[in-house]
Amino acid sequence: MTEIDAAIAFILNGHQQFMAHLSLDCAILGYHDQQVKILLIRYNGHQQWGLPGGPIRHEEPISVAANRIAEETTGISGLFLQQFHTFGDSPYRVHHRTVQDLERLIQPDALGIKIKKDNWLLGRQITIGYYALVDYQQVSVRTNLFVEEYRWWDIDQVPELLFDHNDMVTKALQTVRLHLYHQPIGANLLPPKFTLPEIHFLYESLLAKSLDRRNFPKKLFALGLLNKLDERRFIGPHRSPYLYEFNKANYEKALEEGIVLVI
Amino acid sequence: MTEIDAAIAFILNGHQQFMAHLSLDCAILGYHDQQVKILLIRYNGHQQWGLPGGPIRHEEPISVAANRIAEETTGISGLFLQQFHTFGDSPYRVHHRTVQDLERLIQPDALGIKIKKDNWLLGRQITIGYYALVDYQQVSVRTNLFVEEYRWWDIDQVPELLFDHNDMVTKALQTVRLHLYHQPIGANLLPPKFTLPEIHFLYESLLAKSLDRRNFPKKLFALGLLNKLDERRFIGPHRSPYLYEFNKANYEKALEEGIVLVI
Repeated sequence: MTEIDAAIAFILNGHQQFMAHLSLDCAILGYHDQQVKILLIRYNGHQQWGLPGGPIRHEEPISVAANRIAEETTGISGLFLQQFHTFGDSPYRVHHRTVQDLERLIQPDALGIKIKKDNWLLGRQITIGYYALVDYQQVSVRTNLFVEEYRWWDIDQVPELLFDHNDMVTKALQTVRLHLYHQPIGANLLPPKFTLPEIHFLYESLLAKSLDRRNFPKKLFALGLLNKLDERRFIGPHRSPYLYEFNKANYEKALEEGIVLVI
Repeated sequence: MTEIDAAIAFILNGHQQFMAHLSLDCAILGYHDQQVKILLIRYNGHQQWGLPGGPIRHEEPISVAANRIAEETTGISGLFLQQFHTFGDSPYRVHHRTVQDLERLIQPDALGIKIKKDNWLLGRQITIGYYALVDYQQVSVRTNLFVEEYRWWDIDQVPELLFDHNDMVTKALQTVRLHLYHQPIGANLLPPKFTLPEIHFLYESLLAKSLDRRNFPKKLFALGLLNKLDERRFIGPHRSPYLYEFNKANYEKALEEGIVLVI
């Protein structure tokens, strides 16, 4: 099946495979060089940027759908995804999407096809939001018929987005910061061996506030989350800080049971 | 319309008014006399207890649906409801519900009605969970054709529930505890004027752990959440503790902006 045939089948009969009225969007946050960014895409036929997302298959567990959509977007499988909120307070969140938007994608007139006003993609959409944290150098996004362009945006320079996606980004960030106090976050974002300043900057970047340089690592040690290695990184004369790694057992336990990080 | 006519219309044609495949369940937590309880109901035709819930109207914002369902259940309007998680990892969460369960409610044979296997109430249900915290003495639950019985259960004695409702209760409690560190919770659960031991016990009950008697109120004062009143409660000779109230402006601001409560 060509890409255009697949698109026609999806638009006309996608509801046979996917649930109507319910979708899933991913806030994919990237960290690199002490800067938090978010992956936004521009759908074909739309001027505004938005979060990557898609529908859920009829018999697909929602966390499986989240992983599928995140993998389709980033090329990375097995991302650590967390649900943050379900959005459905405006009954017509996506009412900007029209028959014309769909027609632009597949030019149905030339094919003798008609897209109806009650098409399954044009009704109410309640959407479940998931966030993921990734090292953004590992991500490789491909464009396709639906996705014209993608870009990493600095988290404090996100433009006006499609639909209610600005609210979704705000809520995703609030939830990441809330979780940061109660779950260890970092194994996906740091190299396997890292220095204390590196994990310090990661937390400062995600929380968007400065943390005490002495107390912050003490708290992580008190929670048993870090192992000090007998290895240093040489970064210049008289500057060779020790390397650390996450204590895997304690990290997994803390993910499971929760922690209270007081920083 | 009689109750039975309304039930027949709901079962046979409810999908004209409500979204299929999507529902909403409420974990209504009550606090009284230093004990946290949860409101469970027993649906007609089911042996097991479960959370109160229901479907969402086609054009109804989901937070409005949550308030409607919570009010239908408790008789209290304007409850402070918070979304905690959306459940849909098992594609057939509610596959225990059968045509026979629906038939028991309205005895369709006698009426010459047939309930089909593809009835809208029998397909996949993805459900959005909301929690509310109430003073349970204010709640008055009415039974109806669908709800045979209700009961307040101690939070540590919840029985084996319908479908995945035990997971929902666990997640609701985890979220309440997480929110407790970042939002003031208490205005719905305490009398307008309360003593320090009363708010102390509330937090201890909800967090299921003991808190330092001296430090805990200090933290609330540091956040500006409490006003000390020039009034005492007389509870016995030599025992007349001061009364306190929430500082409304700071309480609202903290709800809006979040806090970090270190206790």
